[in-house]
Amino acid sequence: MAEAGENTANEHDDVADPYGPRRDRALAAALDAGFAGLIATPGPDLAYLTGYTPTTASERFTALLLTPDIEPTLVVPTLERPDAERVGAAPRYRGWRDETDPYQIVAALLGRAGRYAVSDAAWALHLLALQATIPGAGYTAMTDALPMLRAVKDAAERSRLAAAGAAADAVYERIVETAFAGSRERDVAAALDALLREHGHEQVDFTIVASGPHSANPHHHSGDRIIEAGDTVVLDFGGLRDGYGSDTTRTVHVGEPAAQVREVHELVRTAQQAAFEAVAPGVSCQDVDAVARDIITAAGHGEHFIHRTGHGIGLTTHEPPYIVAGEKQALTPGMCFSLEPGVYLPGRFGVRIEDIVAVTDTGAVRLNNTAHRLQLVG
Amino acid sequence: MAEAGENTANEHDDVADPYGPRRDRALAAALDAGFAGLIATPGPDLAYLTGYTPTTASERFTALLLTPDIEPTLVVPTLERPDAERVGAAPRYRGWRDETDPYQIVAALLGRAGRYAVSDAAWALHLLALQATIPGAGYTAMTDALPMLRAVKDAAERSRLAAAGAAADAVYERIVETAFAGSRERDVAAALDALLREHGHEQVDFTIVASGPHSANPHHHSGDRIIEAGDTVVLDFGGLRDGYGSDTTRTVHVGEPAAQVREVHELVRTAQQAAFEAVAPGVSCQDVDAVARDIITAAGHGEHFIHRTGHGIGLTTHEPPYIVAGEKQALTPGMCFSLEPGVYLPGRFGVRIEDIVAVTDTGAVRLNNTAHRLQLVG
Repeated sequence: MAEAGENTANEHDDVADPYGPRRDRALAAALDAGFAGLIATPGPDLAYLTGYTPTTASERFTALLLTPDIEPTLVVPTLERPDAERVGAAPRYRGWRDETDPYQIVAALLGRAGRYAVSDAAWALHLLALQATIPGAGYTAMTDALPMLRAVKDAAERSRLAAAGAAADAVYERIVETAFAGSRERDVAAALDALLREHGHEQVDFTIVASGPHSANPHHHSGDRIIEAGDTVVLDFGGLRDGYGSDTTRTVHVGEPAAQVREVHELVRTAQQAAFEAVAPGVSCQDVDAVARDIITAAGHGEHFIHRTGHGIGLTTHEPPYIVAGEKQALTPGMCFSLEPGVYLPGRFGVRIEDIVAVTDTGAVRLNNTAHRLQLVG
Repeated sequence: MAEAGENTANEHDDVADPYGPRRDRALAAALDAGFAGLIATPGPDLAYLTGYTPTTASERFTALLLTPDIEPTLVVPTLERPDAERVGAAPRYRGWRDETDPYQIVAALLGRAGRYAVSDAAWALHLLALQATIPGAGYTAMTDALPMLRAVKDAAERSRLAAAGAAADAVYERIVETAFAGSRERDVAAALDALLREHGHEQVDFTIVASGPHSANPHHHSGDRIIEAGDTVVLDFGGLRDGYGSDTTRTVHVGEPAAQVREVHELVRTAQQAAFEAVAPGVSCQDVDAVARDIITAAGHGEHFIHRTGHGIGLTTHEPPYIVAGEKQALTPGMCFSLEPGVYLPGRFGVRIEDIVAVTDTGAVRLNNTAHRLQLVG
């Protein structure tokens, strides 16, 4: 890769390097939407547009600038420039050293006032400095400016998401064979973490093990509670494998469940299945949310379904499209997102079932394929 | 912890709960500096002021608001509120559900215009929404507003940093016993990752293994290069142990080094030692940087020392105070930071030596204590 600087434009258009075409498409979309350009900072936007992710997002400013007036340029701390060059992150680089001001470099490169789309997770530290340095410019968060920039996955991306999903499924098949009763939540969570890494994940984002009354808390931190017979246990885990996300939830039960647990589980399963069957090109995100929500509401549990039905997934485990009331975005083949209705009875128990699905030309396919039944564990 | 809501003010002032006093001190400092209040978002500021860290910083808005007009209030997604309450994150909570607008809640709570200090790493998505929702308000990044908010560590924090440093030292003692020649950089990096976790780290932030010519790149991504006899290898690794950071660098050599490697190593060792001896209360950050830099410059390698001399460490592995030209901040007992001069000869080799140090009443102590000699490895 050391000879990246000698690449011809032709080689950059190769399928092996999707970044040039992505940058072209992103800039065209930004201009179409009335923006002067894009500012992509470390994280999924930068990875999507350059293939480059610095060791850490930090107080040191790094950003890819896309405008019609300049070649795509990566402003990068001098000491990280060799890493960026090694992956051929951009056609041009502007390094800056610790004692200099990177925002002045951005001001000079942008050249003119206008409104720029900026990565959602750009640091306030950097945005405020840009605002102070370039008085004529405005900024809009990428999710508001170009919400669907990364939403439609190409074949290579879908293949990686499918591999991440299959790995998460393999982890689930392993964890349900282990002993739940008598284990602390955090022990099961640690086992999930180790299994995800064993199955190729380079990053684990969450390993929620919510047992007994904790299962009524959708984002429970796995803790010291000892799981016991009679517990409902929500298992929600995921991370990044080969750069792309996994995220799946199953609800298991230690020993024979009470009738109401079975009823609520069946309700959630029905809602998740109906949402899956509702997915098709042209259907709006909010309509998919409504399908799941209406079923749960009709059963008297609307107030116990306290989160949206799903979220997109790709280079992150949470991104557009959001499957939520008010989101009118139409689904398009290649979009990938979670469907994860849940019902939570405070102080008692909760149930959630989550699969990643990919929109096809005619409907959807699941990227998680473990059984939806209420799995009994020991 | 479920009875957190029943705590009296008295219990909140207990040493076991440092958060109330920290919030009082932070707000007083903000008001002194002319700010209307603080907005702390997930990450080190929020952890410092509440003890609470959500599972992930995300597109869902979470923030602690500190102003003179309200009790400290955590604005939090409803589905994460139980986690926040469990750690007693704040005296008051305002939950918000996915279909509602958290920024309107912030607007109502802040009540009036003014300039607020906001966490460095607050997402642009959130800051832009606040700017759009509260036209009268201004924002300054915490590092600019209250740079030393978390810089002076209390006894409990210093003890955790010392434990993290000792763990990193133990990792170094183990890694130098392993075979370098014939291993890929990424294999040694993976071993460092595993050793850090084995020694109590819950998070690994970086494991730089830069061998041969790669050692001339301070932030090298460990890759597929196979380490061979004659290589200089820079090992720079760290993460969080019990919530507090470790970060240490040593330069090792595979077999007998050339004379110039020994010379450069001795130069860097001398510069690091001189910087350490320069640390004392009242000395400025820039003066410590200058001590190391002057020695390296006098030896003709000024242009090869391409980064600052150090950075603070605490709830993160990079924070104020920065030991860099232009930083006039005076050192104060309790400040903890790295001293890590380096010399990098492009295409050939590099050397860096890094310890975390803590300022005492009379000078400094090292929190890393492995030998500074050029360690020979096999």
